[in-house]
Amino acid sequence: MDMVSFFNVRRPKSVTSNSKNGFSALSITASQEDDEADSGNHVRLKSPRWFSEFSSIWPGQAHFLKVENILFQGKSQYQSMLVFQSASYGKVFVLDGDLQLTEKDECSYQEMITHLPLCSIPDPKKVLLIGGGDGGILREISRHSSVEEIDICEIDTMLIDVYKEYFPNVAVGYKDSRVKLHVIDGTLYLKSIERGTYDAIIVDAFDPIRGDHELLESEFMEVAARALRGGGVMCIQAESLWCGSLDIQKLFSKCRQIFKGSIDYAWTTVPSYPSGVIGFLLCSTEGPYVDFRCPINPIDPSSCGISKQPLKFYNSEVHSAAFCLPSFARKATSSMMKPKNST
Amino acid sequence: MDMVSFFNVRRPKSVTSNSKNGFSALSITASQEDDEADSGNHVRLKSPRWFSEFSSIWPGQAHFLKVENILFQGKSQYQSMLVFQSASYGKVFVLDGDLQLTEKDECSYQEMITHLPLCSIPDPKKVLLIGGGDGGILREISRHSSVEEIDICEIDTMLIDVYKEYFPNVAVGYKDSRVKLHVIDGTLYLKSIERGTYDAIIVDAFDPIRGDHELLESEFMEVAARALRGGGVMCIQAESLWCGSLDIQKLFSKCRQIFKGSIDYAWTTVPSYPSGVIGFLLCSTEGPYVDFRCPINPIDPSSCGISKQPLKFYNSEVHSAAFCLPSFARKATSSMMKPKNST
Repeated sequence: MDMVSFFNVRRPKSVTSNSKNGFSALSITASQEDDEADSGNHVRLKSPRWFSEFSSIWPGQAHFLKVENILFQGKSQYQSMLVFQSASYGKVFVLDGDLQLTEKDECSYQEMITHLPLCSIPDPKKVLLIGGGDGGILREISRHSSVEEIDICEIDTMLIDVYKEYFPNVAVGYKDSRVKLHVIDGTLYLKSIERGTYDAIIVDAFDPIRGDHELLESEFMEVAARALRGGGVMCIQAESLWCGSLDIQKLFSKCRQIFKGSIDYAWTTVPSYPSGVIGFLLCSTEGPYVDFRCPINPIDPSSCGISKQPLKFYNSEVHSAAFCLPSFARKATSSMMKPKNST
Repeated sequence: MDMVSFFNVRRPKSVTSNSKNGFSALSITASQEDDEADSGNHVRLKSPRWFSEFSSIWPGQAHFLKVENILFQGKSQYQSMLVFQSASYGKVFVLDGDLQLTEKDECSYQEMITHLPLCSIPDPKKVLLIGGGDGGILREISRHSSVEEIDICEIDTMLIDVYKEYFPNVAVGYKDSRVKLHVIDGTLYLKSIERGTYDAIIVDAFDPIRGDHELLESEFMEVAARALRGGGVMCIQAESLWCGSLDIQKLFSKCRQIFKGSIDYAWTTVPSYPSGVIGFLLCSTEGPYVDFRCPINPIDPSSCGISKQPLKFYNSEVHSAAFCLPSFARKATSSMMKPKNST
């Protein structure tokens, strides 16, 4: 690995194959001659062992992490994967060149996207996770003793296997006996089930949703709303407050039409994500009014679920605080928060 | 400027001098031959126009910003300065190689470090700013109509001039007639004034304070506490929650000894800072009890002060939310918050 200088799994240079852990493990080696500079948004480094992330959503900036050791590199039928030991963020998982998860800060994202919806409704029993193949959200759902069924739609089983191998503390969620894996596209699954099946749906499957996101125009949101019981809730990753193309008002307006209940927006700190912030869009369907800011269903601290570890990030104070938006973002939400006819 | 490839103002390569705007303006040019890779924590890029920040506090990671245009580079008797137009963060100010301020996100830092203390006490009249030479905190103090005197200690007058030239919307704070500039070291100034002079002191002069910070052992904290009236408040930048070396408990314990009032810790999102988070340590002296979480002195929205612009980030909701800490950080603070004998 001494020759590893820079890798971008979207554009691998030279690839050698190893068989390891039952996966098709790959490692990238690149000679110094490969180093080059793009004049556009990409740069390549001559220095050894740095991973870089450039995102089209965040042009003009990049985040670099120092690589201690490449643990796995491979490709499923859907996407390429890279696992490395970083110098400062623990193990890191990269999907199609985009940083997905680091051991250092996964707690913030996984705990918030799970407990913001589940702590906002009384006694959730049936929960659906779309995407989230790493298992961390399953681990968090597992803390809720009221939950009887946890369904997950994840199409890439190799991704699950890689997480189980390299991130056992994340993938531990699969060990909960309530979990049932459906290897099927989320939209197809949602279409196949009865109306009003779920108390909560958590979506961790797409690029972060924005005001102009194609997801809003697709049938996905319609079928998700249909799959929820009255007063059921959905939580989906929704960009960063600092992202120029985030239009919360448009997002709210569209989701109000579809879900017909309350809509709200929260955010948390995730250092490895560009801008250090990830937002969440929360929607409830017509029925019993859901006040997302008020966690009426707090987590029993003695109930750690399958992970046996206490919460690292989430608590009821952080829950409510997550909905407090900077003034520049608050204008959009203040008039849009409550449904017209809450019951 | 076409040849500019990478610059690190700590280690300039070749420097040409221009006279511009009355300053000793410098620009760096570097040929391709200068590009090299360090095996340690530094990398240099062959690609044109990227600024990189590597911090010893945050080893193993780096943040890169694309440079559209270098506007100023120079050196005062104290430090080197760089101003560039970035592709995504507006104008950027760099001090001794460390990113100090970007137009995109300065609102968060400046508004929070100012209004967290000033909105926590009734009618602040005399306010001292130590450091903060850019003028942004002065701009924010200016919103408080109760304030009669605003003193600032800043030793580097060239820094002030550069900000006035390139960041007029930040340096506008100097135009407030209540502002009095003292070109003197903060500690010396504090020693020279009468005990109990100020209602509030804001400190923006040092590296972010940590649990093991030498500032805690120096006389600075003692003389700052001495300069405050009973129940007066100090706010100082105090690292990120995500920084491994931050020891909030140690920080609280030390500051409680010195200030003898209430101590609390808040944080905000600043995308251009490593981890995307900056924290604030707030201390009050013995006297009327200060509950930092409760903004009893809200800002009159119609009073914009010298800037004429409304607040971009701060509001009373964000104020209280800033004190809600993730579980991993909360343990340290929950038992330490209140003074032993609050009056």
